[in-house]
Amino acid sequence: MRISLEQTVKLLSKNDKMLILTHTHPDGDTLGSGFSLCYALRSIGKKVNVLCADSISEDYDLITEGYEAEDFEAEYIISVDVASPEMLGRLEEKYGGRVDLCIDHHGSNSDYAKNLLLDHCAATTELIFSLVKMMDIPVTKKIADCIYIGISTDTGCFKYANTTSASHRIAAELIDAGADYATVNRIFFDTKTKSYIKLEKMAMAGLEMHFDDRCAIMCVTKEILEKSKATQEDCAKLAPITRQIEGVLVGVVLREQDDGTFKASVRTQSGINASDLCAKLGGGGHAAAAGCTLHGSLEESKKMLLDSIEEALNDRDNTDK
Amino acid sequence: MRISLEQTVKLLSKNDKMLILTHTHPDGDTLGSGFSLCYALRSIGKKVNVLCADSISEDYDLITEGYEAEDFEAEYIISVDVASPEMLGRLEEKYGGRVDLCIDHHGSNSDYAKNLLLDHCAATTELIFSLVKMMDIPVTKKIADCIYIGISTDTGCFKYANTTSASHRIAAELIDAGADYATVNRIFFDTKTKSYIKLEKMAMAGLEMHFDDRCAIMCVTKEILEKSKATQEDCAKLAPITRQIEGVLVGVVLREQDDGTFKASVRTQSGINASDLCAKLGGGGHAAAAGCTLHGSLEESKKMLLDSIEEALNDRDNTDK
Repeated sequence: MRISLEQTVKLLSKNDKMLILTHTHPDGDTLGSGFSLCYALRSIGKKVNVLCADSISEDYDLITEGYEAEDFEAEYIISVDVASPEMLGRLEEKYGGRVDLCIDHHGSNSDYAKNLLLDHCAATTELIFSLVKMMDIPVTKKIADCIYIGISTDTGCFKYANTTSASHRIAAELIDAGADYATVNRIFFDTKTKSYIKLEKMAMAGLEMHFDDRCAIMCVTKEILEKSKATQEDCAKLAPITRQIEGVLVGVVLREQDDGTFKASVRTQSGINASDLCAKLGGGGHAAAAGCTLHGSLEESKKMLLDSIEEALNDRDNTDK
Repeated sequence: MRISLEQTVKLLSKNDKMLILTHTHPDGDTLGSGFSLCYALRSIGKKVNVLCADSISEDYDLITEGYEAEDFEAEYIISVDVASPEMLGRLEEKYGGRVDLCIDHHGSNSDYAKNLLLDHCAATTELIFSLVKMMDIPVTKKIADCIYIGISTDTGCFKYANTTSASHRIAAELIDAGADYATVNRIFFDTKTKSYIKLEKMAMAGLEMHFDDRCAIMCVTKEILEKSKATQEDCAKLAPITRQIEGVLVGVVLREQDDGTFKASVRTQSGINASDLCAKLGGGGHAAAAGCTLHGSLEESKKMLLDSIEEALNDRDNTDK
């Protein structure tokens, strides 16, 4: 059931012993949402924990530092920035069917939770900010850091078209509340790890251009991952690069996974819907950033993807006419 | 004489036939300031022109499109984002000594104008925004684009420590006024030309790390320049990359020039003064970004530079002790 901000505030106020779940391969928005909501609810006396199926990179120390799990039996399950139960990873089995409240901003949300607060704002942390304000909970520096990280990382530091005036207004309040935005942005937008540099070098060396240079595709094989010692975070930074190339409408990074499948990260310019494109291959996401998992060899996976991209480019050409 | 926003509004209201001067090598802030002020004052019936000593890149089309110089004799001279008369370039001779009003945000402003509105905000366009609002002039989409470009380019898209909550609040108002922020940010922060991609690939392939990976150095030879067809702008984007590498305190790009000498662009993290380092080799610049020209073969030039860098790193280590 879709619910409003007001109804969400009522549910959060009424319940206790809450467990907040984030999605796998956790990013700034799911972690920022989960921990800011946890800190806010703890500050009014609730018992709250946060759980993620995967380990959390030290890039997010500003979010997690000082957090300790408390010992209690969870009675109310919340998911944040989790569009579908599969995104819970190994936690899906235990919690996938019993999420009481989902707070999300993905248009592709599969409406799996009992209650769903969904808004197409730039980041789920923007929703958390609204909830915290409506509950009259003070925005501490810690909460401000968490919420800022969500907005900043999901908007490419206020760069992408998903940024709104509301994103900027919230950022202003967070900075006034002490958010350490300069440190956050240096970590996420101005630092390249050595493993990332190696990864980028190897991936760029194999960059392929297709369809009159309107599509750029990079492959990250297990061999490249091993040689570069690249992390998940390193890989996540590659996708936006493909779309930065002048004239490119669809940028793709194909990454080989442990089980031999290929995870595609698709980034598009306006006029091509990445979510629609990936949905045809069993995936989903946002209009400009989406993903899917492909089963087959590298060449087969690439072909499936390129066929879909060609179709999307043709559709776009026909619409333009 | 230092004046307030209110006094500036009075001067702008009282005067007519105004000429607005920008600085040489014009950037987003000086152009955004000059043209937004021009469009705003023209909208209330003033005669206003903008003048820049250098040509303006087409990257700034959103600012300049539709502008036409009017024919009148200027009676009131304004400079925007111009810290000293020398920054007027070839316009200094005619106008350097007769600037009636300077609107600026540089701490280093030499106080050369009759009246100076100075505030250490992130961008001079933030001051223009305040003036336009105080004069009750509607913020059109055009004016919003100009002001947004100034803030966005001077803050690295809200990334750097100079960003304030006021920058974000103004950005929110500009977006609501129709500023095409997504296009602006794509042009300035999310586009790599094909020549740049080629250049980066070739330069990165030869990236060398020295002194326990605290120094990164890239060489751009004539051969690389020819093969990549890279422009000056492309080369300028390489230097910051060397400093982005994790742990790097000194990043260098050595570029071979037509006369066979090598131009070094040096970028440093805090603790190493780039200007001091380059001064020893006959160059200069700012604390974090400086340059010098080296005479000798690539290997000789590199050695001269590396010797200086080693010295600077040792000095830093000794200071730390």
